[in-house]
Amino acid sequence: MAHIDLGNDLPGIRGPMAYRPETARPLNELAEVLLRDDNNTLTRGERELIGTYVSSLNDCFFCQNVHGAFAQYYLACDMPYIDAVKSDPLSTTISDKLKALLGIAASVQKGGRQVRPEQIEAARALGATDREIHDTVLIAAAFCMYNRYVDGLATWAPQDRQFYVDRAPTRAAEGYLDYDLYK
Amino acid sequence: MAHIDLGNDLPGIRGPMAYRPETARPLNELAEVLLRDDNNTLTRGERELIGTYVSSLNDCFFCQNVHGAFAQYYLACDMPYIDAVKSDPLSTTISDKLKALLGIAASVQKGGRQVRPEQIEAARALGATDREIHDTVLIAAAFCMYNRYVDGLATWAPQDRQFYVDRAPTRAAEGYLDYDLYK
Repeated sequence: MAHIDLGNDLPGIRGPMAYRPETARPLNELAEVLLRDDNNTLTRGERELIGTYVSSLNDCFFCQNVHGAFAQYYLACDMPYIDAVKSDPLSTTISDKLKALLGIAASVQKGGRQVRPEQIEAARALGATDREIHDTVLIAAAFCMYNRYVDGLATWAPQDRQFYVDRAPTRAAEGYLDYDLYK
Repeated sequence: MAHIDLGNDLPGIRGPMAYRPETARPLNELAEVLLRDDNNTLTRGERELIGTYVSSLNDCFFCQNVHGAFAQYYLACDMPYIDAVKSDPLSTTISDKLKALLGIAASVQKGGRQVRPEQIEAARALGATDREIHDTVLIAAAFCMYNRYVDGLATWAPQDRQFYVDRAPTRAAEGYLDYDLYK
């Protein structure tokens, strides 16, 4: 049960978002432009994977499954592949550039000052642009917010991980702005 | 020097915000509704103090001084008072309710799962409403994002703390949405 009375039984972040739509709007707009907007050289799958990885490091069950399912859908892979990226990205077949970006994201998760110049240089040497590095830092930072919002209020989450996978195609098509709470 | 070429010499978060106005817009809209909107039973000063405290825990020099100066302005106190709240809130004359909310914010800063039901109950017993608890959790979570954005990109910050104090009255009147980058 959530720490406060949200007045609804929506899962995860959707509960407090429906409770407080004034803050939900910019939270969803940020997700839409960062994770879903097509004006980006990082694919949707890569960006969702960064969010999934950080959510896993923050031990946020809801977010790592919502965004892991998005990543799985966009990357056309399976759940064990997503789980392998979460537990040890370097052991997987993701690109070297994405491995470097996930390393930056992991540092951001610990704290902004943990990002080292060598990590930036390494990512750049593997082809990462300044905009990609910027977006990686902000995606990682944003998930440090979303994860804390979800768990700091003790929201509930469906425990069947397949639930998230089944919903992902529809939700991916809808995007982050198409919520009933805005209608 | 920032980790990436921001194309401007603006301090702190304003550098990456001018670099990427598409994400700056929801980031500022969130700050405006959370910290400045008058439809809130927490005063602006109390909300800025929560953000200052979390920024201090995250060791973010720019954010703790920007928002500390806002809190100082709204609360009509001095810098040593703000510094005392940052280092030991329980030793200060802030309300017992705000002390309880800062305790919740400190747990959120460590991680969402760190918030304990007893902390929520204690805050409620001291008069905190569900909406105030919600906003405290989201303010604390949001500063875990802003702080990481500022330091994860290694932005620069004016080192003279009086700089922030001097700017606060004008910036407080302008609000978070009145940036040149939106004009």
